[in-house]
Amino acid sequence: MRKEENTQAKERPADENRYEGRNVVLEAYRSGKVIDRLYVLEGCKDGPVMTILREAKKQDTQVQFVKKERLDQLSQTGKHQGVIAVGAACDYAEMEDIFRKAEEKGEDPFILILDGIEDPHNLGAILRTANQAGAHGVIIPKRRAVGLTGTVARASAGAIYYVPVVRVANISQTIEELKKRGLWFACADMDGEVMYRANLTGPLGLVIGNEGEGVSRLVREKCDYVVSIPMKGDIDSLNASVAAGVLSYEVVRQRMLAAK
Amino acid sequence: MRKEENTQAKERPADENRYEGRNVVLEAYRSGKVIDRLYVLEGCKDGPVMTILREAKKQDTQVQFVKKERLDQLSQTGKHQGVIAVGAACDYAEMEDIFRKAEEKGEDPFILILDGIEDPHNLGAILRTANQAGAHGVIIPKRRAVGLTGTVARASAGAIYYVPVVRVANISQTIEELKKRGLWFACADMDGEVMYRANLTGPLGLVIGNEGEGVSRLVREKCDYVVSIPMKGDIDSLNASVAAGVLSYEVVRQRMLAAK
Repeated sequence: MRKEENTQAKERPADENRYEGRNVVLEAYRSGKVIDRLYVLEGCKDGPVMTILREAKKQDTQVQFVKKERLDQLSQTGKHQGVIAVGAACDYAEMEDIFRKAEEKGEDPFILILDGIEDPHNLGAILRTANQAGAHGVIIPKRRAVGLTGTVARASAGAIYYVPVVRVANISQTIEELKKRGLWFACADMDGEVMYRANLTGPLGLVIGNEGEGVSRLVREKCDYVVSIPMKGDIDSLNASVAAGVLSYEVVRQRMLAAK
Repeated sequence: MRKEENTQAKERPADENRYEGRNVVLEAYRSGKVIDRLYVLEGCKDGPVMTILREAKKQDTQVQFVKKERLDQLSQTGKHQGVIAVGAACDYAEMEDIFRKAEEKGEDPFILILDGIEDPHNLGAILRTANQAGAHGVIIPKRRAVGLTGTVARASAGAIYYVPVVRVANISQTIEELKKRGLWFACADMDGEVMYRANLTGPLGLVIGNEGEGVSRLVREKCDYVVSIPMKGDIDSLNASVAAGVLSYEVVRQRMLAAK
């Protein structure tokens, strides 16, 4: 497993799909590759770069304008020409894949909705949990969140290849749409009903907040109820992937009881 | 929170207590600093280095012999003279601190025993869980495990300053000793009794295994029972800190029920 020493010795994930240089990045876009993140040299606005930025906008890629030193550091080829695109380590799924999975198993849909998880190790750990707790899929936002990077793939211990992950532009809107399909939404927050007393059986979307700020206000307002993990400690919160695990397994427990 | 970008930009934790150079390292030992790890240049066997190695043996420090390139990379001062010692970011506790904490709260002792957690982010996340789930302390082994490093301190979100962490030479022996003080020991493994059906109330030591190999055979044999988390997935296991969280909260649930 990942040790501190190894992390220090070899930091950059080697299995991310990285595209460097103007033609390479443009070709990646035009051939339909899913780009998670685009790094562009600050102040660079010539023709080819503007073309790439238009493609990025079409695909709703997260764009970061960075200094030359940062690009040089990110570059694996040394020939980035001011643009580096990082592709997803694994294909994203469609919403129907999630519902199909639930249907195949003859189960009520159980979906994890991640409202802005930023740490790739957390996302990887949550994908493992989703797989083991029998969630039928995971929904993540396109912006301000980590995508399916190489680090996530490794941290997921292979779960990334089993759990359908859908990327959406707007989490609140997605919740609205999924409500029409019969799902109920619970979000995790400190002041909610203790999870043991909430009813988490039935078709469920479980919303997990961002590491620093929790669930955003707009998303929280869309949820049917707020549930909480009992906190007996002195600090603020649990690690986000641990909280997702504890809540997911409360769903597992309640479903096992209900099935009896 | 920690983002992939930040991790790449600034990898080495700055707040670890690092001691570099022969006199500095020797002084650190002699003044009673707790050294978690000692890096020594391969083949280096002169007088001062042998003195440091004797001190390291007394304190049972984990020693790694490494190449010059590795030392140069670890060095913050550029003047390591062949030795770098990494101190704990926080003091270790005594076993009595754990029992005192349980007694003060009027609760049956609840201790997490970590059988070789290697990833600092996992240890940090487990310390958060220990704090929030009301565990009275955490026990870790001196060898083949991460200690209280700066990365662990950060990942623990401050929990490191609240949860007593005791370092022991031998986990099996410690379990034997704690059994005499009335604790029961449960370890987590795939083939155990489903945790919802096991009795996790009463004075309890919950043993969590290493990330790759789980609980070691010797430690497992000392445990009174083996409990399992239901696994519905295609992959092998949960992330170690998530597993620790799910099990700890099953203890919380059962204790809440028992208290009614």
